[in-house]
Amino acid sequence: MNVLPPTVTPPVRTLMGPGPSDIHPRVLATLARPTVGHMDPYYLQIMDELQSMLREVFRTKNRLTMAISGTGSAGQEATVLNLIEPGDRVLVCVNGVFGGRLVDMAERAGGEVTTIERPWGEVFTVVEVKEALARVKPKVVAIVLAETSTGAWQPIEKIAAAVRDAGAMLILDTVTALGGIPVEIDKWQIDAAYSGTQKCLSCPPGLAPVSFSDRAVDKILKRREKVRSWYLDVSLIANYWGGDRVYHHTAPINMTYALHEALRLVLEEGLEACFARHRRNHEALKAGLAAIGIDYATQPGHALPQLNAVRIPPGIDDASVRNALLERFGIEIGAGLGAFNGTVWRIGLMGYASRHTNVLVLLAALEQLLAEQGHQFEHGAAVAAANAVYRDRK
Amino acid sequence: MNVLPPTVTPPVRTLMGPGPSDIHPRVLATLARPTVGHMDPYYLQIMDELQSMLREVFRTKNRLTMAISGTGSAGQEATVLNLIEPGDRVLVCVNGVFGGRLVDMAERAGGEVTTIERPWGEVFTVVEVKEALARVKPKVVAIVLAETSTGAWQPIEKIAAAVRDAGAMLILDTVTALGGIPVEIDKWQIDAAYSGTQKCLSCPPGLAPVSFSDRAVDKILKRREKVRSWYLDVSLIANYWGGDRVYHHTAPINMTYALHEALRLVLEEGLEACFARHRRNHEALKAGLAAIGIDYATQPGHALPQLNAVRIPPGIDDASVRNALLERFGIEIGAGLGAFNGTVWRIGLMGYASRHTNVLVLLAALEQLLAEQGHQFEHGAAVAAANAVYRDRK
Repeated sequence: MNVLPPTVTPPVRTLMGPGPSDIHPRVLATLARPTVGHMDPYYLQIMDELQSMLREVFRTKNRLTMAISGTGSAGQEATVLNLIEPGDRVLVCVNGVFGGRLVDMAERAGGEVTTIERPWGEVFTVVEVKEALARVKPKVVAIVLAETSTGAWQPIEKIAAAVRDAGAMLILDTVTALGGIPVEIDKWQIDAAYSGTQKCLSCPPGLAPVSFSDRAVDKILKRREKVRSWYLDVSLIANYWGGDRVYHHTAPINMTYALHEALRLVLEEGLEACFARHRRNHEALKAGLAAIGIDYATQPGHALPQLNAVRIPPGIDDASVRNALLERFGIEIGAGLGAFNGTVWRIGLMGYASRHTNVLVLLAALEQLLAEQGHQFEHGAAVAAANAVYRDRK
Repeated sequence: MNVLPPTVTPPVRTLMGPGPSDIHPRVLATLARPTVGHMDPYYLQIMDELQSMLREVFRTKNRLTMAISGTGSAGQEATVLNLIEPGDRVLVCVNGVFGGRLVDMAERAGGEVTTIERPWGEVFTVVEVKEALARVKPKVVAIVLAETSTGAWQPIEKIAAAVRDAGAMLILDTVTALGGIPVEIDKWQIDAAYSGTQKCLSCPPGLAPVSFSDRAVDKILKRREKVRSWYLDVSLIANYWGGDRVYHHTAPINMTYALHEALRLVLEEGLEACFARHRRNHEALKAGLAAIGIDYATQPGHALPQLNAVRIPPGIDDASVRNALLERFGIEIGAGLGAFNGTVWRIGLMGYASRHTNVLVLLAALEQLLAEQGHQFEHGAAVAAANAVYRDRK
């Protein structure tokens, strides 16, 4: 190599896409604290504290609550590979990209997979799930609480009860949910849940919080054959996080520091206050967008506050608006994935990115860019409508 | 949770164990730079630069050279799961913990595994490997270049040639090797190599550099069945790192920054200078230890410069010395694993930890602690012997 690239000097962005979202400055600072050994007594204490805080955030007493050493997708696959044995009948509910990914993972785990589907942006009813449970008689069911590709917020309590009544285990995707909307692992009796750090936890990507019920742990310990991945074998990882501290792999020390601080932030604010903040900023954004003729692509009544999937107005060029937001305003929003590609924007208001300043500057920037592309609306209406929501809610 | 734990304030350690090793201050600073989106044009540029620098460090032109989003063990499993298909005959060379782990992973991949073994601390001869190749006729062979559990440096060039002559693919563990001793992926014609960030690259754990030959990529693309892990499926990950930038998972952005800076540091110093520094500090440590009666547990002539596995002197209490090093001097060294547990210390001189100040302070501290435990030696001899090596080498 003749010339080395320069050191990393990233542009400062406002991250309002589907993740990573804005990182809290305290989390970034904590990330760079001095690395200690992964068997250092200090690190073991940090792991314990992290587990306690994760249990609070997941609202669970599950002993096996920890962070997988990979991104959210690694946590997803850890739940799937550990709970499913070859030949197990599995029911996967698919209404977006991440349900589809569960199917792929479950098949690689050797599961006999049946799917039920809803159009993109819609959610499942308990009736549909019950019908499928009776038909398929699955050992494991998997569903997404907050579909990052569509912004759909899946009602889960009654479905979870139906799955339990049918004698199956329930895997719940809470990647975009955790910290943004209620996740009630114990109340809903979820058997395995996974999340990521880079959504509503205001932390860089790199760890995957997971929680397994005692029932799930029991099933894993009684498996007939080994989990198909050594790296994601929860029975081995549990001995590393648990009291025995049996060496498995070397945990990402500094990412653990960062997640520790991120969980401290959520619990300092309080979960309910955190959810209320996400709702308030969503309502302001929604009012602002409505005022300039931008609607949601998600089934009415089921839009996630932290991930706003909205229809690109007719005549507006998707990529040029997103590029201008990034280049001229430093704001990242997300493109549509899959069925929503080219017709939907995904606006994240997750974690530290869920701030009224972010809502206002995005609406102001959108007004400028849409006006340039000839979109017809009352100039100033978006910001005024958002401000009205904040004023009423003060 | 009634009371939140305090923010992370780690003790400052000198990391001279088997990893993580001392992080270079420039790497820690880079880790905390502002997070951008994983599809941001700036991040795509950083990924490209990182790949180019990794190719330099691996000494390869392999297009598929990148970092897996997990720790070294994730890279290890990525090579195994992708190269091995169910029913493939696999030969694994086992002379320590990490060879043993390759067996476990290869079995989970569905391989029909045969092992050859050497006692802990010893290395394989090309004759032994050739005999096994003729007997087993494997499709894939796996071996460790730098065995972190024993400090053994495996001569590889002739073995690699024999494996290729036998028509098999070779997986090489370079976790503790990369950046500390020569790794010549192209010259040796290695098909798949994996490493970790937290050994000789002076970077926190969290990413796994990997490189696959075109031949290996061809085998992966022609697989009869899908890789058993979606997260570690290299054909999917390659599309994310490659020109198409197809979304797979969300990469650990800040860890990528850190590895980028770590690779810059290695290439700034120059690989040969970096290897020479590792050798020089090893020789000084070895001379110092010999002067106070501490020998190596590794086969003579095959001790790694960066990982020194040494015999604990008779009458010395393993744990109390390691604990005192940590508590009184802030120095971490490693315990023995497996067959070496309780009888061996593992002293890492890896990456930024390979400094003459580290060698001298460790020897001085050991002199103090061994004297307290009644070990007989000429006081001052260890430091004097190390200094003599540095003086001669100036």
